[in-house]
Amino acid sequence: MIDETHDPDLRSWVESANAPGCNFPIQNLPLGVFRTRGDTESRIGAAIGEAILDVGPWLEGHNLNGYMTLSSVQRRDLRRVISSALQRGSSRQDLIPQSDCEMLLPAAIGDYTDFYASIHHARNVGSMFRPDNPLLPNYRHVPVAYHGRCSSLVVSGTPIRRPSGQLGGGRFGPTQELDYEAELGAFLGPGNKLGEPIPIAEAERHIAGVCLVNDWSARDIQRWEYQPLGPFLAKSFATSVSPWMVTIEALEPFRVSAAEHESPVLPYLRESGSGAFDITLEVWLRSSSMEKPFRVSRGHFKEMYWTLAQMVAHHSSNGCALRPGDLMASGTVSGPAKENRGCLLEMTWKGTEPLVLPDGVRRMFLNDGDEVILTGYCEREGFVRIGLGSCGGVIGAAC
Amino acid sequence: MIDETHDPDLRSWVESANAPGCNFPIQNLPLGVFRTRGDTESRIGAAIGEAILDVGPWLEGHNLNGYMTLSSVQRRDLRRVISSALQRGSSRQDLIPQSDCEMLLPAAIGDYTDFYASIHHARNVGSMFRPDNPLLPNYRHVPVAYHGRCSSLVVSGTPIRRPSGQLGGGRFGPTQELDYEAELGAFLGPGNKLGEPIPIAEAERHIAGVCLVNDWSARDIQRWEYQPLGPFLAKSFATSVSPWMVTIEALEPFRVSAAEHESPVLPYLRESGSGAFDITLEVWLRSSSMEKPFRVSRGHFKEMYWTLAQMVAHHSSNGCALRPGDLMASGTVSGPAKENRGCLLEMTWKGTEPLVLPDGVRRMFLNDGDEVILTGYCEREGFVRIGLGSCGGVIGAAC
Repeated sequence: MIDETHDPDLRSWVESANAPGCNFPIQNLPLGVFRTRGDTESRIGAAIGEAILDVGPWLEGHNLNGYMTLSSVQRRDLRRVISSALQRGSSRQDLIPQSDCEMLLPAAIGDYTDFYASIHHARNVGSMFRPDNPLLPNYRHVPVAYHGRCSSLVVSGTPIRRPSGQLGGGRFGPTQELDYEAELGAFLGPGNKLGEPIPIAEAERHIAGVCLVNDWSARDIQRWEYQPLGPFLAKSFATSVSPWMVTIEALEPFRVSAAEHESPVLPYLRESGSGAFDITLEVWLRSSSMEKPFRVSRGHFKEMYWTLAQMVAHHSSNGCALRPGDLMASGTVSGPAKENRGCLLEMTWKGTEPLVLPDGVRRMFLNDGDEVILTGYCEREGFVRIGLGSCGGVIGAAC
Repeated sequence: MIDETHDPDLRSWVESANAPGCNFPIQNLPLGVFRTRGDTESRIGAAIGEAILDVGPWLEGHNLNGYMTLSSVQRRDLRRVISSALQRGSSRQDLIPQSDCEMLLPAAIGDYTDFYASIHHARNVGSMFRPDNPLLPNYRHVPVAYHGRCSSLVVSGTPIRRPSGQLGGGRFGPTQELDYEAELGAFLGPGNKLGEPIPIAEAERHIAGVCLVNDWSARDIQRWEYQPLGPFLAKSFATSVSPWMVTIEALEPFRVSAAEHESPVLPYLRESGSGAFDITLEVWLRSSSMEKPFRVSRGHFKEMYWTLAQMVAHHSSNGCALRPGDLMASGTVSGPAKENRGCLLEMTWKGTEPLVLPDGVRRMFLNDGDEVILTGYCEREGFVRIGLGSCGGVIGAAC
């Protein structure tokens, strides 16, 4: 539902929020968990321009898990309250500059699930390993996913140590094929009780908001370990999460029809209405010798084969409980063109076509010192651009 | 280290603990979390015979996560204290009858990992699906595992609702191939920081204790969904955990040499000393028409291809953080003989050789109303038998 909080003419008394191209205008109001330097307690804030409004008066707690227990109606009410407080004409309140704050993970994440929802990614990866049969028979029917590791979820900015592992052929050592995966994350809530599936028509109400996720991957470890139970240590050394959760309410103006399905889906996954969101994800890479990051790719979340609501309906279809604070990621967001490929495995075609960066830097996979920055945003004629912020990490040497 | 707490001549002033064949003699002292009927607060207790000693005076908290932050030296000290308090000659204290208590999960489980450590299970399952190539090339090198779902971990006794899901061939509905998997669980602690692997020589210090795990599985859902990222909804509807954690210290007398490896393992997995434990796991099945449960199988944990220490060393080898309260399960404990097979998939050979129970009951997979009970124990000449208790669940109809 598009309401007055999305009005493109709204302006804030926080001037940095009114600058064109700002990630966090008053139409956005993403929520996050912050701590001022030297402070031990964490607090909940809303990003506005280059500042943070402490939302403690309306939302208690040290993380967003409480927020994620709210109904979608309660969440919309809170959005209106925060929007009013920040609109031009309202009385000014104390703000905290973002540059003075350390950001933390938005929630205590009880379970983390990673989907595989881009058919372009699945086809690309499949055709590298099974040229005759790139897409497995279940792909167009099952929103394929696996359980990820919670203990290695880290907030944007956390250094990423190159993992060691079995590389096949009797070798153990630092991965030689370190990769990123640009994904959209979704925080869940309020969720369901064990044994009570969420019907597709109600599924979207259980998405609290979205963020950026970099599912760092060690491809050599993955190739050797993943049969028959899926990826394990190739992914569980670090997964970076952006600190600002853009609420599902803020995304409303960017709702679009989902990609056409290539064959009919089962009734429990059939959506009426427009279940997709037009969110652009970009990958930027900066080697230690480069001054500025270079944009490597740009993908579009609306091109995913499965929507967030379909992921929720599928995930809970066996009765699995989804709890407030759970994180669901989309899998690598890739599209049909080369510039849409959301990981190096695809971009360099399994390390056979080097990626050429400015200053003659060439990459098959990531080197130590490389910084990877994901960014995300929504744009639509007649609405104010909203940003997801960024999710970054620098690769450090193996120990 | 076998010490005075393992002395087979020790007797308790709790008479039910001295009965032959008792699961919880004074040599055992497993820890669990209980609540007396009507009480809202949970407490930590040690099982002794048919009673529970509230260990609040020595161990605070509402779950065992605090215990799991202790070092192995501190844990051994606590064991001595509890043993002393319960020995004949010590002053009697108030006890709570187990029959008056509701048991809860022993810990707040932050991550749950399921291994695939029985080569017999892997060979059996592999030969059903790949007769020419039953064991994948990585099996003898990699302790294969996948991340499981925490939100569907339930304590023994919780009813198990038959899940629905995609069964392949365009069908969606209640699973027709519901199965159990008899596994040993291990609670972890104190664990490691992200980026700091645990060396194999220190790995066992990070095992706090063991329990029984029934990794309920829907085989038809699993077969259709599991490529290429592993099992997901086929397992995430329920996983039952026994309530009493038998400490690693209590298992000391039952330490044995690990099964011979069929080929050398990489140095980070090489153990000196005896890293296996001789624990017997039994599966009992009772249909709604049967008066008493019938023993279907008996497996031996000492026959697993990988030890608990190897699982810990492997799990953390990429820097993945293991946290106090994390649960690691072994995968189905199967052995070389038919009577050792720890799941129906193996026992009925993919539903082709029915299991025949008393009263003419026949099973390929589980029916509604069936009760599955896992039990576990350790026995060795010259030591008192210790039990792991039981882990049960009754199958309810799909919703």
